Amino acid sequence: MTTKIILDCDPGHDDAIAIMLAYANPKIELLGVTTVVGNQTLDKVTRNALSVAKMIGMKGIPFAKGCPRPLIKEIEVAPDIHGDSGLDGPKLPTPEQQPIDKHAVNFIIDTIMSHEPKTITLVPTGGLTNIAMAIRLEPRIVERVKEVVLMGGGYHEGNWSAVAEFNIKIDPEAAHIVFNAGWEVTMVGLDLTHQALATPEVIERIKAINTKPSQFVVELLDFFGKMYKQSQGFDYPPVHDPCTVAYLIDPTVMTTKRVPVDIELRGELTVGMTVADFRYPIPTDCKTQVAVKLDHAKFWGMIYEALEIIGNPDE
Amino acid sequence: MTTKIILDCDPGHDDAIAIMLAYANPKIELLGVTTVVGNQTLDKVTRNALSVAKMIGMKGIPFAKGCPRPLIKEIEVAPDIHGDSGLDGPKLPTPEQQPIDKHAVNFIIDTIMSHEPKTITLVPTGGLTNIAMAIRLEPRIVERVKEVVLMGGGYHEGNWSAVAEFNIKIDPEAAHIVFNAGWEVTMVGLDLTHQALATPEVIERIKAINTKPSQFVVELLDFFGKMYKQSQGFDYPPVHDPCTVAYLIDPTVMTTKRVPVDIELRGELTVGMTVADFRYPIPTDCKTQVAVKLDHAKFWGMIYEALEIIGNPDE
Amino acid sequence: MTTKIILDCDPGHDDAIAIMLAYANPKIELLGVTTVVGNQTLDKVTRNALSVAKMIGMKGIPFAKGCPRPLIKEIEVAPDIHGDSGLDGPKLPTPEQQPIDKHAVNFIIDTIMSHEPKTITLVPTGGLTNIAMAIRLEPRIVERVKEVVLMGGGYHEGNWSAVAEFNIKIDPEAAHIVFNAGWEVTMVGLDLTHQALATPEVIERIKAINTKPSQFVVELLDFFGKMYKQSQGFDYPPVHDPCTVAYLIDPTVMTTKRVPVDIELRGELTVGMTVADFRYPIPTDCKTQVAVKLDHAKFWGMIYEALEIIGNPDE
Amino acid sequence: MTTKIILDCDPGHDDAIAIMLAYANPKIELLGVTTVVGNQTLDKVTRNALSVAKMIGMKGIPFAKGCPRPLIKEIEVAPDIHGDSGLDGPKLPTPEQQPIDKHAVNFIIDTIMSHEPKTITLVPTGGLTNIAMAIRLEPRIVERVKEVVLMGGGYHEGNWSAVAEFNIKIDPEAAHIVFNAGWEVTMVGLDLTHQALATPEVIERIKAINTKPSQFVVELLDFFGKMYKQSQGFDYPPVHDPCTVAYLIDPTVMTTKRVPVDIELRGELTVGMTVADFRYPIPTDCKTQVAVKLDHAKFWGMIYEALEIIGNPDE
Repeated sequence: MTTKIILDCDPGHDDAIAIMLAYANPKIELLGVTTVVGNQTLDKVTRNALSVAKMIGMKGIPFAKGCPRPLIKEIEVAPDIHGDSGLDGPKLPTPEQQPIDKHAVNFIIDTIMSHEPKTITLVPTGGLTNIAMAIRLEPRIVERVKEVVLMGGGYHEGNWSAVAEFNIKIDPEAAHIVFNAGWEVTMVGLDLTHQALATPEVIERIKAINTKPSQFVVELLDFFGKMYKQSQGFDYPPVHDPCTVAYLIDPTVMTTKRVPVDIELRGELTVGMTVADFRYPIPTDCKTQVAVKLDHAKFWGMIYEALEIIGNPDE
Repeated sequence: MTTKIILDCDPGHDDAIAIMLAYANPKIELLGVTTVVGNQTLDKVTRNALSVAKMIGMKGIPFAKGCPRPLIKEIEVAPDIHGDSGLDGPKLPTPEQQPIDKHAVNFIIDTIMSHEPKTITLVPTGGLTNIAMAIRLEPRIVERVKEVVLMGGGYHEGNWSAVAEFNIKIDPEAAHIVFNAGWEVTMVGLDLTHQALATPEVIERIKAINTKPSQFVVELLDFFGKMYKQSQGFDYPPVHDPCTVAYLIDPTVMTTKRVPVDIELRGELTVGMTVADFRYPIPTDCKTQVAVKLDHAKFWGMIYEALEIIGNPDE
Repeated sequence: MTTKIILDCDPGHDDAIAIMLAYANPKIELLGVTTVVGNQTLDKVTRNALSVAKMIGMKGIPFAKGCPRPLIKEIEVAPDIHGDSGLDGPKLPTPEQQPIDKHAVNFIIDTIMSHEPKTITLVPTGGLTNIAMAIRLEPRIVERVKEVVLMGGGYHEGNWSAVAEFNIKIDPEAAHIVFNAGWEVTMVGLDLTHQALATPEVIERIKAINTKPSQFVVELLDFFGKMYKQSQGFDYPPVHDPCTVAYLIDPTVMTTKRVPVDIELRGELTVGMTVADFRYPIPTDCKTQVAVKLDHAKFWGMIYEALEIIGNPDE
Repeated sequence: MTTKIILDCDPGHDDAIAIMLAYANPKIELLGVTTVVGNQTLDKVTRNALSVAKMIGMKGIPFAKGCPRPLIKEIEVAPDIHGDSGLDGPKLPTPEQQPIDKHAVNFIIDTIMSHEPKTITLVPTGGLTNIAMAIRLEPRIVERVKEVVLMGGGYHEGNWSAVAEFNIKIDPEAAHIVFNAGWEVTMVGLDLTHQALATPEVIERIKAINTKPSQFVVELLDFFGKMYKQSQGFDYPPVHDPCTVAYLIDPTVMTTKRVPVDIELRGELTVGMTVADFRYPIPTDCKTQVAVKLDHAKFWGMIYEALEIIGNPDE
């Protein structure tokens, strides 16, 4: 039994690895990749997504371009983490595929509405603009989606402010819509993803796979690691986005805790914070859960396996 | 030379009269009527719009149903002004026409994109949810629209708080998007529309037209007047929405002043305020203007004329 | 029957004239002058107040130095209106008098508590920091004061933002305390004081008094006029602060309207706005009123008279 | 070498124990106890403080009554934790001593200004209204105080909202003043104090001391425990306030971490949050530290010792 997903992303180094994992793992059926402004401009992240597709020989999966800016806030991108292209480091292959002629928001709506209810999982790994727009344009998707497993936020960690994470902070209004929609949301936040470190052992292991895609990943992680060291003082880079896909492949890759989560829209110091309420008692109808503890070996094992499945696509 | 408009409304007593004016006046080419949650729920205001169409024998003009709720805020309707149906007072005729099978947001986008640039004027008389959604889903409409003439806000008057008006306050984030989009916006706010009073003379004059639609309008104004007296202490009801259409028919029906206007999203007392900055100097690239002084006789003259043109549609 | 007042000010060109009017007019008994950071730093405005005292031969009235900074906000001064000294223009005489050895906040409290209840009127013409501190340190002053007549705010005009006035915006939390304390507050705001223009006729008339203090005032108004022209586009400078004292001398110098007023603390565009609620019905227990229309001739007549009473104090 | 402190409190069950520890421990020189609205109204907490003094035979130490309400917010007390009296549980002895005839704010200022610089530590265990008022009335105390060690806030825990603690949330503006004053602040927040649990073993040990005061403490903890169980689901009650005094007796009773802390004033979900910024790099001039890990045995050892020193004061 596979899990059908739409991956909504803004590649982004860690998004790139999320695409690979979602594409290669046999438990995941990737129905489409949608892009959204975030780590870089919409044009850049869309091109990056298609470059990754080319690199891993991914075919037959639709890519749809989404929103070029957040709902209310002005555009904010993250060149200090992802470089000027949004995927700096390796030489990016020229994409073969083109995005489909449909807006990501409509692709998301149409895909959900044309599948059986409760069969599709949304996996956003960027800002939540596309998903929020889809909810507001077609509210029936909320009932119809199986669940949302997103990378974003943090109950006790922040990176774009003391208490807010990039994906949420760049479009807090969109996040507010998504977290309050009434569907099941699993928040894979910094608390979890800061455990998904690409240690030297991890990189050695990937290097040993010795394919073009694995070499590509090594170069991505090398650049990503330098940027994270420089800007946030990390010894090894946290590879956020694929943690969402890993959870869908095997939920035992992490522990989670069910708590209410809401988005702060107005604070001066806290705007974009994912406010998790751990206080007693947790409401019985709570629809949100947060990721807590990662099984590092199991997680990276999935990445190795995906790269091995991908192999050298040209050959 | 006619003005092509899309009327985005939430009937509503004054919306109903705006529909009549837009439909009947020969200077206006009404491309479509879109509906949005506001004075009442989306289902109610959509039915009301279609009832008005039936009453005035309006045919061949598409009606499209839009957003059932604001972007971020919870739904807030106005039964103390418009009654439980949203159009209380007269007996409402059963609609003949159905809404088209396209979302108002897509109707707005497709209509704008399929017409020549700078030929279509948007006339929102309800909350700005549909218009904001259209901008975010298809940003190119901003360049392509001729202008936006909206009923909403007030630079020195409020009705839904001390300083905020209903249409803006029920979806301030949408208003923020619309006012900051970069197109020309004429704000016909309470400062102007509180001058558009349906005095006893006005009502007598409408009664004298002596058609079913004129009788319908008299009954609308009678109910509207009672509610405005009760809830806001007005001697005669202010008929807000048709002022926008009147301006497009003949701009000399009001004076306007060019000033920057922005929307307050965070105040405790001021959320949803249309903050107009009258301070010296007014920026030369200012794209917003506010309506100041109404020519009461000219305005009501247009309404009489429209009702005379409409006549008794059944006959 | 005189009115006992404490003048809490931050001279400031118009504060200087308020001091003169309060000192010279026989209907006002000036119990003391307290100073507060505002138009310039506390040290500067205190020195300015004492310079004005020297210029007009004012003796026997205590001056007390108050708060050097607002409650929460950082210090913001107004050199573009009042110059670097806070009283630029004329040569300032060296003060003879020293401030008393008591904090303004304690002076205010002690003066109020040692007089009969309901005999003292507070006249703040700067930021409201001192007054707010006095309320919080000795809440019984609220019951004991007769009323507060302050220069600040504006129900339809702003100068330090589109909708906020300087005195309120530099310490909105203090203003919030003062406006919500439960005592009678008359807000003499920009709506009124922008009518108190020092026209060429006014200046000619003052010049004709032909004393050192009148010459001093002419030089003040000359500088003030240039600054107002430059920074806010006024043809003639609005002389805000003495309007409060004028009202206490003869309330027919202005019309007022009783409406609730509260202070916005959180808006992005509106922080520090004096939100007046003109909507029907005005609560019967409303304790705030706003100044609406000035009798320009009567107002300036009081200023001329004060200068004539002051004469040439050295002679 | 003793540490001179002023204890600013709102007893409150845990405040009562803080008073005992500060009074009895020979390393602490208690210069005075000041009271502030918080757990209950000012009158109640002041009476409670004096009752505790009577119970433990405390003499010669001045008690000063402070602010009866927060700076901006309305009064909010905590009867669900501390009962209707603010110190429910045991029978409270009738106080012998009266508060001195000086406001707590003036007592704090005068005490600090009349001692050598850098000799006095402020220990607030309630809302920060008194301390904030003292800073604004006499800014020189900031330079003169040695440090501030306060109970309040939490970097990862909240009790009065998902992310805010009671002492900070009831007067966030005061907390903002205190945390931004520029002096050294040690925040002993919920992260630490939720470790200071009065377990059954602790209560047994206190009971065994077998004095009237120890019996009084047992009854306090019994009531406190029931309330914490009921309202917050704790198995044993966290005894917050004496942790501050314990730290001053022996800093090894806890670990701390130096991080910037600021107070959120505007959030809808986060107002009153102590926003700690753990991100790299910590500024070298950071003046705030947060308490992290408690040595439970060492902490309770201090309490036992204090109760033994206090003995049976009547005998």
